[in-house]
Amino acid sequence: MSEIKRKMASLDGACDPFDYVSKELELVEQNLARAILSREQALTDIAGHLIHGGGKRVRPMVTLLAFLGFGGKRISEIVDIATAIELIHTATLLHDDILDGAETRRGKESAYKRYGLKPTLVAGDFLFIKAFEFAGKFDETVVQWTADACAQLTEGETLQGYFNRNPAVTLDDYLEIVRRKTASLFQTGARVGAYLAGAQPAFIDETARYGLNLGIAFQVIDDILDVIGNIELLGKPTGMDLRDGNPSLPIILALKNGQSGVREAFTSPQPSEDQIAAALDVIKVGPVIQQAKTLSKQYANEALISIKKLPPSHYLNGLKTLVQLIIDRDF
Amino acid sequence: MSEIKRKMASLDGACDPFDYVSKELELVEQNLARAILSREQALTDIAGHLIHGGGKRVRPMVTLLAFLGFGGKRISEIVDIATAIELIHTATLLHDDILDGAETRRGKESAYKRYGLKPTLVAGDFLFIKAFEFAGKFDETVVQWTADACAQLTEGETLQGYFNRNPAVTLDDYLEIVRRKTASLFQTGARVGAYLAGAQPAFIDETARYGLNLGIAFQVIDDILDVIGNIELLGKPTGMDLRDGNPSLPIILALKNGQSGVREAFTSPQPSEDQIAAALDVIKVGPVIQQAKTLSKQYANEALISIKKLPPSHYLNGLKTLVQLIIDRDF
Repeated sequence: MSEIKRKMASLDGACDPFDYVSKELELVEQNLARAILSREQALTDIAGHLIHGGGKRVRPMVTLLAFLGFGGKRISEIVDIATAIELIHTATLLHDDILDGAETRRGKESAYKRYGLKPTLVAGDFLFIKAFEFAGKFDETVVQWTADACAQLTEGETLQGYFNRNPAVTLDDYLEIVRRKTASLFQTGARVGAYLAGAQPAFIDETARYGLNLGIAFQVIDDILDVIGNIELLGKPTGMDLRDGNPSLPIILALKNGQSGVREAFTSPQPSEDQIAAALDVIKVGPVIQQAKTLSKQYANEALISIKKLPPSHYLNGLKTLVQLIIDRDF
Repeated sequence: MSEIKRKMASLDGACDPFDYVSKELELVEQNLARAILSREQALTDIAGHLIHGGGKRVRPMVTLLAFLGFGGKRISEIVDIATAIELIHTATLLHDDILDGAETRRGKESAYKRYGLKPTLVAGDFLFIKAFEFAGKFDETVVQWTADACAQLTEGETLQGYFNRNPAVTLDDYLEIVRRKTASLFQTGARVGAYLAGAQPAFIDETARYGLNLGIAFQVIDDILDVIGNIELLGKPTGMDLRDGNPSLPIILALKNGQSGVREAFTSPQPSEDQIAAALDVIKVGPVIQQAKTLSKQYANEALISIKKLPPSHYLNGLKTLVQLIIDRDF
């Protein structure tokens, strides 16, 4: 978190979203630490490896800001749902690292690499279950939204699997994958935050739209950083999408532009490190990164438009700043 | 199910538990079929491979009988929670087949073998999420019990992993694994059934104890069948516990008796088929199967004692017959 704060200092210090919800985020941290306690130390260790591994907590932050922005009062409620959303996110990361065979995550060995497939799979299930414990106490509406978001995550993962190393993937396919796999959880956090604060239905919808667009912008930046990012700030090597055959935005745009070497690296069952490095260089010098940045700004702008009519407050300012923070980030 | 009915004919036809809840079980089937619908056909296919693959539906049946035995009226409620419990069970089977590298399940290729690790992992997550959708609409008590049962499943899996191919495993370790991994879901189904029917707290506890003991008896029989079962009735080869290094009851008892060849097959990282066949033969001719059957009868008896004071009804008779059915089964 301190890393993001460091980044924030270069923005307008007067509307630092972290400061607005720091007390509530601390309660989320306490919840998370309690949630992963198990009589099986191995489960606590594996879950803790990732939970305490430097996550940005962006999803809880969106949830909290949306709630407080509409004058929500029952803090413990929103803290519980923000906890559930971060637990779901962490569960999917554990399972994603299995799916991708990822060796590193957040600057250290992935749980998959460190503890092996089986314990990591079970720990992911454990976190899903703990999320259910936190989210299941809410009314049917919240339960349904949360379950829908989770189902979308698996449907996004499935669609992404279908386009793994598959050059037929289009920009529309990409956006559909991202809506499901990344943006749905941002969207649900924002939606539930507004709903639990008692916002009008039209406002709830606008806030959900904010979350959706913010989530897409977030993923586009992730994809860009996988090409041009700094390995130390990222906490993992660049080029992972090419290595794993995941259809990222720069790859899709480069394929469309017919940039040489990218198709070969993307479609090869096991691209060599030389192939990957060459493809990354090709992507870097072409127009693709700029095109991707433009797209992320469009979605960021959509997010800002969605919350334009929300009641003014410093939480609203926080939501706005968060958009900027997310598209300017370098990790 | 027809398989179990066939078996039932040899028992007292007047208290066939399937007949008592056949309408409700049909509603569970409809729920399950609806639950696995996804816009990603692959998820529906993988989930359906197992959901429609001939499960015995014992857990839903316990849940329904306990509910109806206490005069429960809101059928759609209990059908929903019975659905959730079967979905959780199926999700764990999908993930278990990954953990065990299982090739067959219920007489056909396992989902893991047929669809591969990644799609099967995601489909398991999908089923967990659908279970949450069904269970999350209940009050906090039901949500907490269900979440606790699920957490126990992962904790049982973890403990079992610790004792994989580990000859230090004791009978107490075994019972702890079984309580968590198998019996907790039976226990929770029975408990929730009684609770939702409005039973007195003392009766709820007794019904839960019935489920716990029934679940332990069920697993002991499963372990016995892995040694002496008929491959066609079982739908999978025998000797799987030795092959996978899972500490089953016959293995633990044979280790305790110092029966030759069992320790070698159990502790070997990759026992040969000859080793497994020899160890199975040794287990079969020794006293172990009889000892295990005695233990299953003890737990079956405990289950019957737990429901002795329940209000008489044909559902109560159904719960009693189910105990007999479970310990007499040959698949």
